[in-house]
Amino acid sequence: MPHASRRLFIFAAGAASLSGAFVQRVNAQSAPVRNRAVFQVTDNDPARWNIILNNMQNLREGVGGEPVEIELVAFGPGIFMLKGDSSVKQRIDAALKSGVKINACQNTMSGMKLVPADMLPEISYVPAGVVEVMRKQQQGWAYIRSRAAGESRPTA
Amino acid sequence: MPHASRRLFIFAAGAASLSGAFVQRVNAQSAPVRNRAVFQVTDNDPARWNIILNNMQNLREGVGGEPVEIELVAFGPGIFMLKGDSSVKQRIDAALKSGVKINACQNTMSGMKLVPADMLPEISYVPAGVVEVMRKQQQGWAYIRSRAAGESRPTA
Amino acid sequence: MPHASRRLFIFAAGAASLSGAFVQRVNAQSAPVRNRAVFQVTDNDPARWNIILNNMQNLREGVGGEPVEIELVAFGPGIFMLKGDSSVKQRIDAALKSGVKINACQNTMSGMKLVPADMLPEISYVPAGVVEVMRKQQQGWAYIRSRAAGESRPTA
Repeated sequence: MPHASRRLFIFAAGAASLSGAFVQRVNAQSAPVRNRAVFQVTDNDPARWNIILNNMQNLREGVGGEPVEIELVAFGPGIFMLKGDSSVKQRIDAALKSGVKINACQNTMSGMKLVPADMLPEISYVPAGVVEVMRKQQQGWAYIRSRAAGESRPTA
Repeated sequence: MPHASRRLFIFAAGAASLSGAFVQRVNAQSAPVRNRAVFQVTDNDPARWNIILNNMQNLREGVGGEPVEIELVAFGPGIFMLKGDSSVKQRIDAALKSGVKINACQNTMSGMKLVPADMLPEISYVPAGVVEVMRKQQQGWAYIRSRAAGESRPTA
Repeated sequence: MPHASRRLFIFAAGAASLSGAFVQRVNAQSAPVRNRAVFQVTDNDPARWNIILNNMQNLREGVGGEPVEIELVAFGPGIFMLKGDSSVKQRIDAALKSGVKINACQNTMSGMKLVPADMLPEISYVPAGVVEVMRKQQQGWAYIRSRAAGESRPTA
């Protein structure tokens, strides 16, 4: 849901007298929408990580000059994407520099005995990945699930 | 989000005089949000069922003391998760006891010649799983797709 | 979407005189919702294409007589679904005739050296699939990701 749609600015300025009824129709769909998307990474598959990183880049470029907020949430086996020895660490670094927020799930880290020292620097942490993904959607962020492993082989 | 929800019809009918009145800016983002998430199960893969059940449990625990509504919708081959001989029936029973709503798609059941007597007791039914998933999202529920089969094998 | 966000409490405090005025609480959840769903296709797997086409048909039929808007967005290897030689071209034609909007991602086409002459007639085009999927969600459309390749094999 668009952030802006939740903001209703109702002006009754200068209404010294409003004798006679008025009916104001507010249509939030005409209000500007903030571009916001959360990407969920739950697998340990470098091929898919690259697809997700491509999708995030395409999103950033695809909105033209409009501002866009992009967040990645890694949990379950997806946590390996954010380890210090991740095969995509240079791309993650580039994503961070471009303004993407990259979150590791602390629940998963705890279950896998991982500590921040094991992880890429400059990433962020959330207590539970699935909660973050729910909350972002409920705050109006779009949810993007990239394609499944094995799907990237064109046969035609 | 429902289109219609963005239309606010504000009636101030019969306001003979509104001198001094003001109408407050309403920012729904500062309002409390009900935690609600719908999980879609469309595959017949016990490994993934366990992941989804874990995700639902992590969600329930991850919101701390806040209320949360969780619903699972099984359709297509996912319907097998809810059969009487499901390998995860004890976990489903525990999820039901914790307050999760578990729905089987009647369309799918009909296509697979399944009747309620074939299914786990205490589950619920929806006429069409895909419609339920759409409606829940449009009512403000977050949508969670768990990871694909084959994704759960850490390689690092 | 937050439940509470749909509740607008409009205060007209300090109204020196509100004779006859009333302030109506608007609860958008009781307002009619337009059925709208966007399906993302990002893989080159005819088996999954059929599942997605089934899901779209089940959605269209599952809403009974209510209007429903359905859109499909193909990007990445999913673009092959919309080529002139697509194995599901008759079903896509039927979906188009039923009112589904079918979009090919121009970014992907450009990367794969595809031009409209290579594609099925009557489909539509979007500059970037991932942007379209984000925007539709932010405009209140539900997001449906169909099941992953390999998930459709019932084992029970």
